[in-house]
Amino acid sequence: MNICIYAFLAGITSLLGSGVYTAAYPLHDVSSIFVRLLYEEWANYSVFYKYQPIGLVRKYFGEKIGLYFAWLGLYTQMLIPASLVGVIVFLYGCATVDDNIPSMEICHPRNNITMCPLCDRVCSYWKLSTACGTARASHLFDNPATVFFSIFMALWAAMFMEHWKRRQMRLNYEWDLTGFEDEEVSNNKTDHPRAEYEFKVMQKSLRKRQKSQDKIEKLTFQDRLPAYMTNIVMMLLMIGVTFAIVFGVILYRISTKAALHMSSSLITRNHVQLTVKTTAAIINLVVILILDEVYGAVARWLTVLEAPKTDKSFEERLIFKTFILKFVNAFAPIIYIAFFRGRLVGRPGSYLYVFDSYRMEECAHGGCLMELCIQLSITMLGKQLIQNNLFEIGIPKLKKLIRYIRSKQGAFQEEERQKKLTRYETDHFLEPFGGLTPEYMEMIHIVHICFHLPHFFSLSLMSEPLSLLQAFVISFTSDFIPRMVYQYMYSPDGSMHGFVNHTLSYFNVSHFQDGKEPMDPSHFGYPVVICRYKDYREPPWSNTPYELSKEFWAVLAVRLAFVIVFQNVVMLMNDIVDWLIPDIPKDISLQIHKEKILLVELFMKEEQGKSYIIDSSTSTDGKENCSKHNNNSKVAPPRSRRHTNSTKSF
Amino acid sequence: MNICIYAFLAGITSLLGSGVYTAAYPLHDVSSIFVRLLYEEWANYSVFYKYQPIGLVRKYFGEKIGLYFAWLGLYTQMLIPASLVGVIVFLYGCATVDDNIPSMEICHPRNNITMCPLCDRVCSYWKLSTACGTARASHLFDNPATVFFSIFMALWAAMFMEHWKRRQMRLNYEWDLTGFEDEEVSNNKTDHPRAEYEFKVMQKSLRKRQKSQDKIEKLTFQDRLPAYMTNIVMMLLMIGVTFAIVFGVILYRISTKAALHMSSSLITRNHVQLTVKTTAAIINLVVILILDEVYGAVARWLTVLEAPKTDKSFEERLIFKTFILKFVNAFAPIIYIAFFRGRLVGRPGSYLYVFDSYRMEECAHGGCLMELCIQLSITMLGKQLIQNNLFEIGIPKLKKLIRYIRSKQGAFQEEERQKKLTRYETDHFLEPFGGLTPEYMEMIHIVHICFHLPHFFSLSLMSEPLSLLQAFVISFTSDFIPRMVYQYMYSPDGSMHGFVNHTLSYFNVSHFQDGKEPMDPSHFGYPVVICRYKDYREPPWSNTPYELSKEFWAVLAVRLAFVIVFQNVVMLMNDIVDWLIPDIPKDISLQIHKEKILLVELFMKEEQGKSYIIDSSTSTDGKENCSKHNNNSKVAPPRSRRHTNSTKSF
Repeated sequence: MNICIYAFLAGITSLLGSGVYTAAYPLHDVSSIFVRLLYEEWANYSVFYKYQPIGLVRKYFGEKIGLYFAWLGLYTQMLIPASLVGVIVFLYGCATVDDNIPSMEICHPRNNITMCPLCDRVCSYWKLSTACGTARASHLFDNPATVFFSIFMALWAAMFMEHWKRRQMRLNYEWDLTGFEDEEVSNNKTDHPRAEYEFKVMQKSLRKRQKSQDKIEKLTFQDRLPAYMTNIVMMLLMIGVTFAIVFGVILYRISTKAALHMSSSLITRNHVQLTVKTTAAIINLVVILILDEVYGAVARWLTVLEAPKTDKSFEERLIFKTFILKFVNAFAPIIYIAFFRGRLVGRPGSYLYVFDSYRMEECAHGGCLMELCIQLSITMLGKQLIQNNLFEIGIPKLKKLIRYIRSKQGAFQEEERQKKLTRYETDHFLEPFGGLTPEYMEMIHIVHICFHLPHFFSLSLMSEPLSLLQAFVISFTSDFIPRMVYQYMYSPDGSMHGFVNHTLSYFNVSHFQDGKEPMDPSHFGYPVVICRYKDYREPPWSNTPYELSKEFWAVLAVRLAFVIVFQNVVMLMNDIVDWLIPDIPKDISLQIHKEKILLVELFMKEEQGKSYIIDSSTSTDGKENCSKHNNNSKVAPPRSRRHTNSTKSF
Repeated sequence: MNICIYAFLAGITSLLGSGVYTAAYPLHDVSSIFVRLLYEEWANYSVFYKYQPIGLVRKYFGEKIGLYFAWLGLYTQMLIPASLVGVIVFLYGCATVDDNIPSMEICHPRNNITMCPLCDRVCSYWKLSTACGTARASHLFDNPATVFFSIFMALWAAMFMEHWKRRQMRLNYEWDLTGFEDEEVSNNKTDHPRAEYEFKVMQKSLRKRQKSQDKIEKLTFQDRLPAYMTNIVMMLLMIGVTFAIVFGVILYRISTKAALHMSSSLITRNHVQLTVKTTAAIINLVVILILDEVYGAVARWLTVLEAPKTDKSFEERLIFKTFILKFVNAFAPIIYIAFFRGRLVGRPGSYLYVFDSYRMEECAHGGCLMELCIQLSITMLGKQLIQNNLFEIGIPKLKKLIRYIRSKQGAFQEEERQKKLTRYETDHFLEPFGGLTPEYMEMIHIVHICFHLPHFFSLSLMSEPLSLLQAFVISFTSDFIPRMVYQYMYSPDGSMHGFVNHTLSYFNVSHFQDGKEPMDPSHFGYPVVICRYKDYREPPWSNTPYELSKEFWAVLAVRLAFVIVFQNVVMLMNDIVDWLIPDIPKDISLQIHKEKILLVELFMKEEQGKSYIIDSSTSTDGKENCSKHNNNSKVAPPRSRRHTNSTKSF
């Protein structure tokens, strides 16, 4: 009977693939009650404080979507403590902004340091005190509490992973996804060859029929080679496109900045930074959104081209490609800001030029961490808002509207007839479930990866590169390490006084290359001889002027040491959390254990019963056995029994 | 029936614990054949090239010892490629020793650099060319191939772990250790309270009888608190003892060196280094051997004091303590040499003194890696040889001899009677199996840890700190990084010429502290003005004399960067190996899968059969079911069925 159902399902899948039927769905016998219940208890803003009725969601949408919403629920729940700590850290930053010595030094009118120009010729020298606002703002993002917060978040991620493992274990148990069923389903349904695959095999055998009479049953590596090559080339190309676009945005920023500085309008010149940053952020966001869609389509196309044998394999390959492409797309600009912006500038007198004319851009004086945070929030918030509203609410509504208009055109009696239709008939007129919306897709990918690719790409595996990335962001993007180094190695009185002066190198303006010096050398009413720039380099009067100074190497060494310490502390914490919180909840493991014992007892009974039957040729024992078994199942129904029931009632 | 056996076993264990019986062992029905087979096929040097008859070993000694020898077999097997690569690396070192520019520069008589004295007053200046031999020897241990070898060994370790997982999986499957049986045994036998624990509970209930009439059934945390406190204090004390002894050996070396330098005999003075190193190494080895025994005893005593409830818990706690203590004992001197020796020296004119009079020791000019290798090989080889011969062959033989002498004294008729005894009676006169010998104990610990403490202390968890340690050894103990830095950052012609000069700082002898300068300043026939020492410090003529130079910080930064790269590459390699080699061998996983399907089918049949029985009240179907089941089990006997059989035949 089981076999029949699977054969039927497999057949339906093939037929769907071949386009014979347009849709297929099992009959929900109580679907309308489900829908009402789900609406009342779940898909409603007024019940946001309640736990999700995951059981209902699973019964209506299936295990995959059920697990996904369970994941989302846990994630949202776990975000509450994280956001609380985040707010506290932010408030700490706000409270200490007035006591922050570096920003006080920058803002103090007495320490009016003359800085080297930010662009060639058209820009002039500027006073550090004009960066006062930026310096104060950057303290909010870059203070000791931020470092604490990042360690906290690493711990939070480890805790989240552990809790998710437990939740998943519980759901798997409650939904009977462990053990036999899982195995069996994967064997019969998911392992069934896809229609596309069978089509390709058929094509191949048709092509070869002339040569040999053997029936061809599978695609060899050679058959797939063109598809694989296309895959590799396209993936590299797509990643190349991402990098090219990031570079393009950089060029846009540099060139627009240069152009705006040359503008004759004073208002334009005063708002250069604001204009450039805003437009660049918008361009970045739009590009990411468009590429996300393009990459999703490309990944699907490439996977279809590959013609994987089973649905499971198709899903895995699709997820892998989509993940890589979207990851690169989302993180390339962020990694550029975190690690390359402001580091490839060169120095006054020897700037680094792109296309021989555009100087690479620097970070604002407060460090790159603030810019990173701004970029991150624009990307994330923008994506969230636009993708949520446009793709999840807008486009489905639009499609519904179009359908509605079409059905209107299909005359009135059509509508009348529709009223008399049963539930499953009206269901047919709903939008087909063409996969989840892109925003959720992403999360689903991550959840999926947890389920399906444990050895290849699991999140706990991801924790290694992610902890490394986090360590690098804190140590190289924030000013935390330079401040520490100054305070404990260079400060004459152990305080932060003098830190700003320490981070600024000297430049003799007579060393400007010809044609690069600012046009008005006496901008402040007096000729500037020495200007300052943010870097650790030797002063002009040393034996090796403008070489990287000893401070540079000391700060670099401490930064790298911090990376090693941070990464290993985070990994150690992960291991400790992993050890402290058992993967399987205590009650579940007890239950599983009980069921195993019952199963063994059942077998023993069965063996005994058999010999008894053979000996006496009566069926009394068989009945007794059966009734005992039923008694047992009241206490804790053994897995396999429940499985048998569920397949029967299917 | 099952229950009876377990109850009997549990009873025997309790009685053994209380000292009623002196020994208990199951009757081996074919033990003498086993012994002969094992001797012929296994415990014999002439069959070293054969695979081990693990099945036999397991049948005679049990699963634990069987798994241990399987582990040892795989380890030995895997060591073959490792040692081959090791030999090649060593040969590469030998072949390139004459082309090694740094040692050529040291040995060249023209570059005769005057070095600062190695000890205060009594030592004089010395010529770098006298370190020629050491420099050439250290090239064997410290060349680019060594770095390759260490990466290879990290990969090797990952491969070994994966292969062991597979081997273990296969053995577990073949020996029926997976699934039900394992679970059941652990529930009934190993989870039974130990006699010592029951005794303590009894004592407690006796003590409390006056106060209340309730029966006390377990020890609370409060009851165990004194034992826990003792544990913590003793563990810290033991670790403290290890550190104290390491420090003691350092003091011995420093003071002996100073004393020998002052000796009037020229021969003594010429062989200072050799004498000190040899004696110190022997002291170290003896101390490690003695402490190993002491720590083993202490760990056992502490675990007995804790009175864990079950044998399994006892074993786990014992292993944990023994592992920590022995690990610290073996690694403390090695870590000292790798990371602290030669780094706490200070500099000429401002040396670091212990107890105000002894200067800390330096590494030989070739770097500390050679000394580390020597120390490691002395410790490992010495331990292997002495522990193997003394504890594994010597002491058992001695004990046997004593028994033999005693039994001789027990008169001739005793011996005559013994001849008539059956196998199990003579077995009683063998040495009781009081645990494995210490040397094997260590390996067993590691294997054990793989089995029993996967979440707490598994070897794959250990791979993180070990890869970090390895990265630090290569980057800080070897001269690999300084050589790279010189070649790519400082060398005028991109070659290694000038490296030796680059690593030596200058010292003006007039800056010696009073009373610390050498007694004969014109040792070489001319007064020395400037001497050199191995460090990256500013020369006396700089603005900041003897401060750490820019080169120091640059080398440090590169070293730390190397640590980050190395650790992450090794972890990535581990992940890739883990992904490439499936944990469960293909044939086993297929087999397990088949069995699961059979099990499900069996259940389905059973359910059908039952309804059939109930419906028709005949037993035909039951018989058919049974015979079918037996047919199936020829192809692949389902796990649980085999289990039932094995428990029955027990």
